[in-house]
Amino acid sequence: MVEPVFSDPDGTREQILAATYRVLCDQGYANLTISAIGEEFEKSPSLVYQHYDSKDDLVLECLEFLLDHFEGKLKHDGIDDPSDQLEEVLDWWFTPAVDDKRMAFVSAMFELRIQAIHDPAFQEHFTRSDRLFGESIATGIRAGIDAGDFPECDPDAVAETIQSTIIGAGLRRSSTDSDEWLGQVHDELEKYLQIRVCAERDGDFEE
Amino acid sequence: MVEPVFSDPDGTREQILAATYRVLCDQGYANLTISAIGEEFEKSPSLVYQHYDSKDDLVLECLEFLLDHFEGKLKHDGIDDPSDQLEEVLDWWFTPAVDDKRMAFVSAMFELRIQAIHDPAFQEHFTRSDRLFGESIATGIRAGIDAGDFPECDPDAVAETIQSTIIGAGLRRSSTDSDEWLGQVHDELEKYLQIRVCAERDGDFEE
Repeated sequence: MVEPVFSDPDGTREQILAATYRVLCDQGYANLTISAIGEEFEKSPSLVYQHYDSKDDLVLECLEFLLDHFEGKLKHDGIDDPSDQLEEVLDWWFTPAVDDKRMAFVSAMFELRIQAIHDPAFQEHFTRSDRLFGESIATGIRAGIDAGDFPECDPDAVAETIQSTIIGAGLRRSSTDSDEWLGQVHDELEKYLQIRVCAERDGDFEE
Repeated sequence: MVEPVFSDPDGTREQILAATYRVLCDQGYANLTISAIGEEFEKSPSLVYQHYDSKDDLVLECLEFLLDHFEGKLKHDGIDDPSDQLEEVLDWWFTPAVDDKRMAFVSAMFELRIQAIHDPAFQEHFTRSDRLFGESIATGIRAGIDAGDFPECDPDAVAETIQSTIIGAGLRRSSTDSDEWLGQVHDELEKYLQIRVCAERDGDFEE
C-alpha cells in the first residue's frame, strides 16, 4: 500500500527520504537518530546533516512525501470498482498474518502519530492524513452509490467510522500480543457495511 | 470513569501512585520524570526513589492499579441496565466538549500504549486491559440478551468492534485538531448496535 513509493527514489531529496523511511521501518521512531539515517543514505551521510536540523524535520518531510504520493494516486487513479477498493483497504488492515516489515511500518506510524499530542507540526500532518484517508473511503462509498452498488447512506459518517475502527484495530494489534479478535472485527465491518446499507434503504433508522 | 480511584489514596504506595497519576495527567508521559513524581508526592520525595528504580516501573504499577480497580468494580457492581451501561461508555468517549484533564488523561494513556510496541511489560498490560475492557462490553451485551433488551448476536465480536472504534476515535481525537466527525462516529455506533441486532434477528446476514 505504501512500500512501492520509494522503490526507485528520484534525486537526492527522495533518496534521503527513502533512507529515512527504511530506518523508520527497521528501528521505529523512538530509536531513530539522524546519524542512523546518514549511515543508511550511503551516497553521502554528511548531506543529511547539511539539509536537516533535526530528526523530526526529516521524519515529517518523509510523512508529507508519502501522503502527497497517496493524494496524487487517489486523484490520478480514480476508483474503478468501489466495493473492491473498500474491500482491499479492509484486507490490507485486517490480514491476520503480515510480514514484519508491514508491522514495523504500521507501528512506526503510530509512534509518529503520538508525537502529534505535543507537536503541532505532527498534529497538522495527521489532521490532513485523516482527512485524506477519510475522503478516499467516502469517495469509494459515494462512487458505489452512483454506480448502483450501494444504496443511499451518509458516506462521510460511514467513512469516519470505518477509519476510526481501522486505526483502533491497528493500534491494538501493535500494542498487544493478541490478534484473534482481528477476524471478528473485519467480519463485523463487512456486515456493518452490508446491513447499514440495507437498513438505510428500508428506512429502519430512527434518529 | 477513572478519576475517582485516587480521590482518597490509602497508604504510602497508593499515595505514590496517585502522585504518578497526577503528574501523568499534567505533563504526559514523554516529559514525566521520577523526580517530578517525587516533588508531587509531598510527604517524602525520597521515598519514591527508594521504592522505584525507573519511571516505567512506577507508571506501569500505576496502570495496573487502575486496571485492578476497574476489574474489581466490574465484578462488584455487576450490570444493572445493559443498554444504559453501553450508552454511558459511548458517551464518555464521544462527548464533544471535554475538560483538559480528561483529554490529558486519555492522551497519556495513548502515549503509554505506544510503549508496548517496544516494551513487553507494557504489552502485557495493554493485552490484559483490552481483554478486560472487551469483556466488560461483551458482558453488557450478553446481559442485555438475557434481559430481553437485545436479541441474539455474537457479543464478543460486537464488543471487539466497539472497542476498536472507541480506541481509534480516541487516538484520532488526541492526535488531530479536528473532532467534528466525533458525533458522526457516535451516531454510527449507536445505529450499528441497533441495526446489527435487527439484521441478526431477521436472519439478514450472509456469511
